[in-house]
Amino acid sequence: MQILITYDVKTSSKGGSRRLRQVAKICTNYGQRVQNSVFELNIYPADLVKIKNKLEKVIDLEEDSIRIYNLGKNWERRVESIGKDEAYNPEKDLLIM
Amino acid sequence: MQILITYDVKTSSKGGSRRLRQVAKICTNYGQRVQNSVFELNIYPADLVKIKNKLEKVIDLEEDSIRIYNLGKNWERRVESIGKDEAYNPEKDLLIM
Repeated sequence: MQILITYDVKTSSKGGSRRLRQVAKICTNYGQRVQNSVFELNIYPADLVKIKNKLEKVIDLEEDSIRIYNLGKNWERRVESIGKDEAYNPEKDLLIM
Repeated sequence: MQILITYDVKTSSKGGSRRLRQVAKICTNYGQRVQNSVFELNIYPADLVKIKNKLEKVIDLEEDSIRIYNLGKNWERRVESIGKDEAYNPEKDLLIM
């Protein structure tokens, strides 16, 4: 499944910078960073449960916000980019050696 | 149609803060801010063309990044939130006087 994770971590609150790093690390482990706090992930449904559990443990539930969008099938047709585009499609870019 | 706009504006580059304000203003005019640089918009397809034109004129195409996701139908079932949730559904929250 293709999902999108966006987050706002309140870095001005206590431990905020650490939480921000931890959230980014979790997302990096599963997907592709496309903007500073936006990741696109191509994962198994079971991974989504794991990711959500990890994120819930890391963030401050009263200060930070995480949003998860299920982009569904044909997600490539649902995405448009204007300006600098750091995204890539791992399936498309796969290099066969 | 329900779309999601996420953006990264390089505020450290010349005029970056101004571009950031302009991008936020355009998005605010059409939708609901759900995170610092994430907006959910319920718009007509014709509006999407307008919004894209406006954003293209405002941003630095080499420094800034805007991503637009078409969330399609049943978008409410596609969204999950962890932590602080500033979003609301204008249709659901509509107050009939």
